[in-house]
Amino acid sequence: MKNTLPKSIRKLIEELSKLPGIGPKSAQRLAIYLLHQPSGRIKDFGEAVIGLKDGIVFCEKCWNIAEDKVCPVCADEGRDSKTICVVEEVLDVVALEKTRDFHGVYHVLHGALSPIDGVGPDQLKIEALFERVRGGVDEIILATNPSLEGEATALYIQKGLKDVDCRVTRIARGLPVGGDLEYADEVTLSRAIKGRGEF
Amino acid sequence: MKNTLPKSIRKLIEELSKLPGIGPKSAQRLAIYLLHQPSGRIKDFGEAVIGLKDGIVFCEKCWNIAEDKVCPVCADEGRDSKTICVVEEVLDVVALEKTRDFHGVYHVLHGALSPIDGVGPDQLKIEALFERVRGGVDEIILATNPSLEGEATALYIQKGLKDVDCRVTRIARGLPVGGDLEYADEVTLSRAIKGRGEF
Repeated sequence: MKNTLPKSIRKLIEELSKLPGIGPKSAQRLAIYLLHQPSGRIKDFGEAVIGLKDGIVFCEKCWNIAEDKVCPVCADEGRDSKTICVVEEVLDVVALEKTRDFHGVYHVLHGALSPIDGVGPDQLKIEALFERVRGGVDEIILATNPSLEGEATALYIQKGLKDVDCRVTRIARGLPVGGDLEYADEVTLSRAIKGRGEF
Repeated sequence: MKNTLPKSIRKLIEELSKLPGIGPKSAQRLAIYLLHQPSGRIKDFGEAVIGLKDGIVFCEKCWNIAEDKVCPVCADEGRDSKTICVVEEVLDVVALEKTRDFHGVYHVLHGALSPIDGVGPDQLKIEALFERVRGGVDEIILATNPSLEGEATALYIQKGLKDVDCRVTRIARGLPVGGDLEYADEVTLSRAIKGRGEF
Protein backbone atom coordinates (compact mmCIF):
# COMPACT_ATOMS: atom_id res chain seq x y z
CA MET A 1 0.00 0.00 0.00
CA LYS A 2 1.19 3.43 -0.89
CA ASN A 3 0.34 6.13 1.64
CA THR A 4 -1.01 8.81 -0.65
CA LEU A 5 -1.37 11.49 2.01
CA PRO A 6 1.20 14.30 2.21
CA LYS A 7 3.67 14.22 5.09
CA SER A 8 2.24 17.23 6.99
CA ILE A 9 -1.19 15.58 7.09
CA ARG A 10 0.24 12.20 8.17
CA LYS A 11 2.10 13.99 10.97
CA LEU A 12 -1.09 15.65 12.25
CA ILE A 13 -3.03 12.37 12.01
CA GLU A 14 -0.31 10.74 14.10
CA GLU A 15 -0.53 13.46 16.76
CA LEU A 16 -4.35 13.39 16.82
CA SER A 17 -4.39 9.57 17.16
CA LYS A 18 -2.43 9.88 20.40
CA LEU A 19 -5.32 11.74 22.06
CA PRO A 20 -7.62 9.63 24.24
CA GLY A 21 -10.81 8.53 22.51
CA ILE A 22 -9.58 9.46 19.03
CA GLY A 23 -8.82 6.46 16.82
CA PRO A 24 -6.96 6.48 13.49
CA LYS A 25 -10.18 6.96 11.46
CA SER A 26 -11.37 9.93 13.54
CA ALA A 27 -7.86 11.40 13.38
CA GLN A 28 -7.95 11.18 9.56
CA ARG A 29 -11.36 12.85 9.44
CA LEU A 30 -10.29 15.63 11.80
CA ALA A 31 -7.09 16.30 9.84
CA ILE A 32 -8.93 16.53 6.52
CA TYR A 33 -11.61 18.68 8.15
CA LEU A 34 -8.93 21.07 9.42
CA LEU A 35 -7.28 21.11 6.00
CA HIS A 36 -10.49 22.56 4.59
CA GLN A 37 -10.59 25.36 7.19
CA PRO A 38 -9.20 28.86 6.55
CA SER A 39 -5.50 29.26 7.44
CA GLY A 40 -6.37 31.77 10.19
CA ARG A 41 -8.47 29.22 12.06
CA ILE A 42 -5.81 26.54 11.78
CA LYS A 43 -3.25 29.00 13.16
CA ASP A 44 -5.56 29.95 16.05
CA PHE A 45 -6.01 26.30 16.94
CA GLY A 46 -2.30 25.50 16.74
CA GLU A 47 -1.38 28.52 18.84
CA ALA A 48 -4.01 27.62 21.42
CA VAL A 49 -2.33 24.20 21.74
CA ILE A 50 1.19 25.62 22.00
CA GLY A 51 0.12 28.31 24.48
CA LEU A 52 -1.80 25.85 26.66
CA LYS A 53 0.58 25.86 29.61
CA ASP A 54 1.38 29.58 29.43
CA GLY A 55 1.03 31.20 32.83
CA ILE A 56 -0.61 28.20 34.45
CA VAL A 57 0.28 27.49 38.07
CA PHE A 58 -1.33 25.62 40.92
CA CYS A 59 -3.39 27.61 43.42
CA GLU A 60 -1.31 27.62 46.60
CA LYS A 61 -4.38 27.01 48.72
CA CYS A 62 -6.48 24.40 46.91
CA TRP A 63 -4.13 23.00 44.23
CA ASN A 64 -6.59 23.81 41.48
CA ILE A 65 -4.98 25.11 38.27
CA ALA A 66 -4.90 28.88 38.22
CA GLU A 67 -3.40 31.92 36.55
CA ASP A 68 -2.48 33.66 39.79
CA LYS A 69 -1.03 32.38 43.04
CA VAL A 70 -4.57 31.91 44.29
CA CYS A 71 -7.44 30.59 42.13
CA PRO A 72 -10.63 32.66 41.57
CA VAL A 73 -12.62 30.54 44.04
CA CYS A 74 -10.10 30.85 46.89
CA ALA A 75 -9.66 34.56 46.11
CA ASP A 76 -13.42 35.19 46.36
CA GLU A 77 -14.13 36.65 49.81
CA GLY A 78 -17.82 35.80 49.47
CA ARG A 79 -17.04 32.09 49.74
CA ASP A 80 -16.95 30.13 52.95
CA SER A 81 -13.31 29.13 53.36
CA LYS A 82 -14.18 26.94 56.37
CA THR A 83 -16.05 24.44 54.17
CA ILE A 84 -13.73 22.45 51.93
CA CYS A 85 -14.96 20.17 49.18
CA VAL A 86 -12.34 17.54 48.33
CA VAL A 87 -12.33 16.41 44.67
CA GLU A 88 -10.10 14.20 42.54
CA GLU A 89 -9.63 16.33 39.44
CA VAL A 90 -9.70 19.88 38.14
CA LEU A 91 -12.77 19.15 36.00
CA ASP A 92 -14.70 18.06 39.09
CA VAL A 93 -14.43 21.67 40.30
CA VAL A 94 -15.86 22.88 36.98
CA ALA A 95 -18.75 20.39 37.27
CA LEU A 96 -19.55 21.38 40.87
CA GLU A 97 -19.34 25.10 40.10
CA LYS A 98 -21.97 24.58 37.40
CA THR A 99 -24.49 23.49 40.03
CA ARG A 100 -24.14 26.90 41.78
CA ASP A 101 -25.06 25.00 44.94
CA PHE A 102 -21.72 25.01 46.67
CA HIS A 103 -20.42 28.16 48.30
CA GLY A 104 -17.35 26.83 50.07
CA VAL A 105 -13.88 26.26 48.65
CA TYR A 106 -12.21 23.23 47.04
CA HIS A 107 -9.23 20.98 47.47
CA VAL A 108 -8.00 19.16 44.36
CA LEU A 109 -6.20 15.87 45.11
CA HIS A 110 -5.04 15.32 41.52
CA GLY A 111 -6.06 11.67 41.46
CA ALA A 112 -7.32 8.90 43.71
CA LEU A 113 -5.54 6.18 45.66
CA SER A 114 -4.81 3.25 43.36
CA PRO A 115 -2.03 0.92 44.54
CA ILE A 116 -2.20 -1.05 41.27
CA ASP A 117 -1.24 2.10 39.35
CA GLY A 118 1.38 3.03 41.95
CA VAL A 119 -0.65 5.94 43.29
CA GLY A 120 -0.25 6.18 47.07
CA PRO A 121 -1.06 9.05 49.46
CA ASP A 122 2.27 10.73 48.65
CA GLN A 123 1.33 11.08 44.97
CA LEU A 124 -1.82 13.01 45.91
CA LYS A 125 -2.29 16.35 47.64
CA ILE A 126 -3.55 14.61 50.81
CA GLU A 127 -0.87 15.90 53.19
CA ALA A 128 -1.58 19.43 51.93
CA LEU A 129 -5.24 18.85 52.82
CA PHE A 130 -4.39 17.73 56.36
CA GLU A 131 -2.23 20.84 56.68
CA ARG A 132 -5.17 23.04 55.65
CA VAL A 133 -7.52 21.32 58.07
CA ARG A 134 -5.14 21.95 60.96
CA GLY A 135 -5.65 25.67 60.27
CA GLY A 136 -9.26 25.26 61.44
CA VAL A 137 -12.15 24.07 59.26
CA ASP A 138 -15.87 23.53 59.89
CA GLU A 139 -16.64 20.83 57.34
CA ILE A 140 -14.81 18.59 54.89
CA ILE A 141 -17.04 17.29 52.09
CA LEU A 142 -15.48 14.22 50.49
CA ALA A 143 -16.53 14.47 46.84
CA THR A 144 -14.21 11.87 45.34
CA ASN A 145 -15.81 9.63 42.70
CA PRO A 146 -18.15 6.85 43.88
CA SER A 147 -15.71 4.30 42.43
CA LEU A 148 -13.42 1.79 44.16
CA GLU A 149 -10.50 4.25 44.10
CA GLY A 150 -12.63 7.23 45.07
CA GLU A 151 -14.18 5.40 48.04
CA ALA A 152 -10.77 4.20 49.21
CA THR A 153 -9.44 7.75 49.00
CA ALA A 154 -12.42 9.11 50.94
CA LEU A 155 -11.92 6.44 53.61
CA TYR A 156 -8.21 7.19 53.89
CA ILE A 157 -8.87 10.91 54.35
CA GLN A 158 -11.65 10.26 56.87
CA LYS A 159 -9.29 8.11 58.98
CA GLY A 160 -6.59 10.76 58.79
CA LEU A 161 -9.04 13.36 60.10
CA LYS A 162 -10.54 11.39 62.96
CA ASP A 163 -8.62 13.34 65.63
CA VAL A 164 -9.44 16.67 64.08
CA ASP A 165 -12.44 18.65 65.29
CA CYS A 166 -14.40 19.11 62.08
CA ARG A 167 -17.43 17.57 60.41
CA VAL A 168 -16.51 15.06 57.68
CA THR A 169 -19.26 14.33 55.14
CA ARG A 170 -19.49 12.32 51.92
CA ILE A 171 -21.55 13.33 48.86
CA ALA A 172 -24.78 11.31 48.53
CA ARG A 173 -24.80 8.21 46.41
CA GLY A 174 -28.15 7.08 45.01
CA LEU A 175 -30.25 7.10 41.88
CA PRO A 176 -29.25 9.75 39.35
CA VAL A 177 -32.05 12.23 38.64
CA GLY A 178 -34.00 11.11 35.58
CA GLY A 179 -32.79 7.56 36.16
CA ASP A 180 -34.92 4.44 36.24
CA LEU A 181 -35.19 2.32 39.38
CA GLU A 182 -35.68 -0.84 37.35
CA TYR A 183 -32.36 -0.44 35.56
CA ALA A 184 -30.27 0.74 38.51
CA ASP A 185 -27.52 -1.64 39.65
CA GLU A 186 -27.81 -3.31 43.05
CA VAL A 187 -25.08 -1.34 44.76
CA THR A 188 -26.57 2.00 43.71
CA LEU A 189 -30.04 0.89 44.76
CA SER A 190 -28.75 -0.37 48.09
CA ARG A 191 -27.03 3.00 48.63
CA ALA A 192 -30.22 4.83 47.68
CA ILE A 193 -32.18 2.96 50.36
CA LYS A 194 -29.55 3.29 53.07
CA GLY A 195 -29.16 6.99 52.32
CA ARG A 196 -32.93 7.76 52.25
CA GLY A 197 -34.05 11.06 53.79
CA GLU A 198 -37.24 12.57 55.20
CA PHE A 199 -39.76 13.54 52.52
CA MET B 1 -21.23 30.39 37.81
CA LYS B 2 -17.61 31.33 37.94
CA ASN B 3 -15.47 29.76 35.23
CA THR B 4 -12.57 28.53 37.30
CA LEU B 5 -10.41 27.43 34.36
CA PRO B 6 -7.48 29.61 33.27
CA LYS B 7 -7.86 31.55 30.02
CA SER B 8 -5.37 29.49 27.97
CA ILE B 9 -7.29 26.31 28.77
CA ARG B 10 -10.66 27.89 28.01
CA LYS B 11 -9.26 29.05 24.66
CA LEU B 12 -8.12 25.53 23.74
CA ILE B 13 -11.45 24.03 24.86
CA GLU B 14 -13.20 26.53 22.61
CA GLU B 15 -11.04 25.56 19.63
CA LEU B 16 -11.43 21.83 20.27
CA SER B 17 -15.23 22.15 20.59
CA LYS B 18 -15.36 23.51 17.05
CA LEU B 19 -14.07 20.19 15.67
CA PRO B 20 -16.72 17.82 14.30
CA GLY B 21 -17.73 15.08 16.73
CA ILE B 22 -16.10 16.76 19.73
CA GLY B 23 -18.57 18.22 22.22
CA PRO B 24 -17.80 20.58 25.10
CA LYS B 25 -17.24 17.72 27.58
CA SER B 26 -14.79 15.88 25.31
CA ALA B 27 -13.04 19.16 24.58
CA GLN B 28 -12.57 19.73 28.33
CA ARG B 29 -11.19 16.24 28.80
CA LEU B 30 -8.81 16.59 25.87
CA ALA B 31 -7.54 19.97 27.07
CA ILE B 32 -6.87 18.68 30.60
CA TYR B 33 -5.26 15.55 29.15
CA LEU B 34 -2.94 17.71 27.05
CA LEU B 35 -2.15 19.89 30.06
CA HIS B 36 -0.73 16.81 31.78
CA GLN B 37 1.53 15.98 28.81
CA PRO B 38 5.19 17.04 28.61
CA SER B 39 5.72 20.47 27.03
CA GLY B 40 7.61 18.89 24.09
CA ARG B 41 4.61 16.81 23.09
CA ILE B 42 2.26 19.76 23.30
CA LYS B 43 4.64 21.77 21.10
CA ASP B 44 4.85 18.92 18.55
CA PHE B 45 1.08 18.75 18.36
CA GLY B 46 0.64 22.50 18.02
CA GLU B 47 3.29 22.73 15.34
CA ALA B 48 1.72 19.84 13.43
CA VAL B 49 -1.54 21.81 13.38
CA ILE B 50 0.08 25.06 12.27
CA GLY B 51 2.18 23.30 9.59
CA LEU B 52 -0.79 21.35 8.23
CA LYS B 53 -1.13 23.22 4.95
CA ASP B 54 2.62 23.62 4.36
CA GLY B 55 3.55 22.56 0.85
CA ILE B 56 0.17 21.04 0.10
CA VAL B 57 -1.14 21.43 -3.45
CA PHE B 58 -3.66 19.64 -5.62
CA CYS B 59 -2.36 16.99 -8.03
CA GLU B 60 -2.77 18.57 -11.45
CA LYS B 61 -4.01 15.28 -12.90
CA CYS B 62 -6.41 13.79 -10.34
CA TRP B 63 -7.08 16.66 -7.88
CA ASN B 64 -5.97 14.57 -4.94
CA ILE B 65 -3.95 16.50 -2.33
CA ALA B 66 -0.24 16.16 -2.94
CA GLU B 67 3.17 17.55 -2.09
CA ASP B 68 4.34 17.76 -5.71
CA LYS B 69 2.59 18.85 -8.87
CA VAL B 70 1.60 15.24 -9.41
CA CYS B 71 0.47 12.89 -6.58
CA PRO B 72 2.34 9.62 -5.86
CA VAL B 73 -0.36 7.52 -7.56
CA CYS B 74 -0.38 9.52 -10.81
CA ALA B 75 3.42 9.66 -10.77
CA ASP B 76 3.69 5.86 -10.48
CA GLU B 77 4.41 4.47 -13.95
CA GLY B 78 3.35 0.99 -12.83
CA ARG B 79 -0.27 2.12 -12.60
CA ASP B 80 -2.80 1.95 -15.39
CA SER B 81 -3.55 5.57 -16.25
CA LYS B 82 -6.32 4.49 -18.63
CA THR B 83 -8.51 3.28 -15.76
CA ILE B 84 -9.85 6.12 -13.63
CA CYS B 85 -11.66 5.59 -10.35
CA VAL B 86 -13.86 8.60 -9.52
CA VAL B 87 -14.28 9.28 -5.79
CA GLU B 88 -15.85 12.04 -3.73
CA GLU B 89 -13.16 12.73 -1.16
CA VAL B 90 -9.44 12.48 -0.50
CA LEU B 91 -9.99 9.89 2.25
CA ASP B 92 -11.80 7.63 -0.25
CA VAL B 93 -8.47 7.32 -2.08
CA VAL B 94 -6.78 6.29 1.18
CA ALA B 95 -9.50 3.68 1.82
CA LEU B 96 -9.28 2.23 -1.72
CA GLU B 97 -5.47 2.14 -1.64
CA LYS B 98 -5.67 0.04 1.52
CA THR B 99 -7.45 -2.73 -0.41
CA ARG B 100 -4.41 -3.04 -2.75
CA ASP B 101 -6.93 -4.22 -5.35
CA PHE B 102 -7.01 -1.19 -7.59
CA HIS B 103 -4.11 -0.53 -9.94
CA GLY B 104 -5.49 2.36 -11.96
CA VAL B 105 -5.53 6.06 -11.08
CA TYR B 106 -8.04 8.28 -9.29
CA HIS B 107 -10.08 11.40 -9.83
CA VAL B 108 -11.19 13.28 -6.71
CA LEU B 109 -14.40 15.29 -7.17
CA HIS B 110 -14.18 17.05 -3.76
CA GLY B 111 -17.82 16.47 -2.94
CA ALA B 112 -21.06 15.18 -4.42
CA LEU B 113 -23.95 16.94 -6.14
CA SER B 114 -26.33 18.33 -3.55
CA PRO B 115 -28.60 21.12 -4.77
CA ILE B 116 -29.95 21.67 -1.24
CA ASP B 117 -26.43 22.59 -0.07
CA GLY B 118 -25.78 24.65 -3.20
CA VAL B 119 -23.35 22.12 -4.66
CA GLY B 120 -23.79 21.90 -8.42
CA PRO B 121 -21.50 20.43 -11.11
CA ASP B 122 -19.43 23.65 -11.17
CA GLN B 123 -18.47 23.25 -7.50
CA LEU B 124 -17.01 19.80 -8.20
CA LYS B 125 -14.11 18.68 -10.38
CA ILE B 126 -16.48 17.16 -12.94
CA GLU B 127 -15.46 19.29 -15.94
CA ALA B 128 -11.83 18.39 -15.20
CA LEU B 129 -12.86 14.72 -15.33
CA PHE B 130 -14.56 15.12 -18.72
CA GLU B 131 -11.40 16.85 -19.95
CA ARG B 132 -9.29 13.90 -18.81
CA VAL B 133 -11.62 11.40 -20.47
CA ARG B 134 -11.34 13.23 -23.80
CA GLY B 135 -7.63 12.43 -23.67
CA GLY B 136 -8.52 8.74 -24.11
CA VAL B 137 -9.52 6.38 -21.28
CA ASP B 138 -10.47 2.67 -21.17
CA GLU B 139 -12.69 2.62 -18.10
CA ILE B 140 -14.28 5.04 -15.65
CA ILE B 141 -15.20 3.42 -12.33
CA LEU B 142 -17.78 5.53 -10.52
CA ALA B 143 -16.93 5.04 -6.84
CA THR B 144 -19.00 7.83 -5.32
CA ASN B 145 -20.84 6.91 -2.11
CA PRO B 146 -23.97 4.73 -2.39
CA SER B 147 -25.99 7.64 -0.96
CA LEU B 148 -28.59 9.88 -2.59
CA GLU B 149 -25.95 12.50 -3.46
CA GLY B 150 -23.38 9.94 -4.54
CA GLU B 151 -25.85 8.15 -6.84
CA ALA B 152 -26.98 11.46 -8.35
CA THR B 153 -23.36 12.41 -8.99
CA ALA B 154 -22.62 9.03 -10.60
CA LEU B 155 -25.70 9.38 -12.82
CA TYR B 156 -24.72 12.92 -13.86
CA ILE B 157 -21.22 11.80 -14.84
CA GLN B 158 -22.55 8.75 -16.70
CA LYS B 159 -24.85 10.98 -18.76
CA GLY B 160 -22.03 13.37 -19.53
CA LEU B 161 -19.92 10.48 -20.80
CA LYS B 162 -22.53 8.77 -22.98
CA ASP B 163 -20.96 10.02 -26.25
CA VAL B 164 -17.46 9.08 -25.18
CA ASP B 165 -15.98 5.75 -26.18
CA CYS B 166 -15.11 4.26 -22.79
CA ARG B 167 -16.52 1.72 -20.37
CA VAL B 168 -18.39 3.33 -17.46
CA THR B 169 -18.84 1.11 -14.39
CA ARG B 170 -20.23 1.58 -10.89
CA ILE B 171 -18.82 -0.09 -7.76
CA ALA B 172 -20.98 -3.00 -6.54
CA ARG B 173 -23.63 -2.34 -3.93
CA GLY B 174 -24.74 -5.29 -1.83
CA LEU B 175 -24.29 -6.87 1.57
CA PRO B 176 -21.14 -5.79 3.40
CA VAL B 177 -18.81 -8.70 4.14
CA GLY B 178 -19.47 -10.02 7.64
CA GLY B 179 -22.99 -8.55 7.45
CA ASP B 180 -26.21 -10.33 8.27
CA LEU B 181 -28.89 -10.86 5.62
CA GLU B 182 -31.62 -10.70 8.23
CA TYR B 183 -30.65 -7.21 9.33
CA ALA B 184 -29.91 -5.72 5.92
CA ASP B 185 -32.24 -2.95 4.76
CA GLU B 186 -34.53 -3.57 1.78
CA VAL B 187 -32.71 -1.35 -0.69
CA THR B 188 -29.36 -3.00 0.03
CA LEU B 189 -30.90 -6.47 -0.22
CA SER B 190 -32.65 -5.56 -3.46
CA ARG B 191 -29.32 -4.32 -4.86
CA ALA B 192 -27.59 -7.50 -3.69
CA ILE B 193 -30.07 -9.63 -5.65
CA LYS B 194 -30.06 -7.48 -8.78
CA GLY B 195 -26.25 -7.39 -8.75
CA ARG B 196 -25.78 -11.15 -8.19
CA GLY B 197 -22.93 -12.84 -10.03
CA GLU B 198 -21.95 -16.37 -11.18
CA PHE B 199 -20.71 -18.53 -8.30
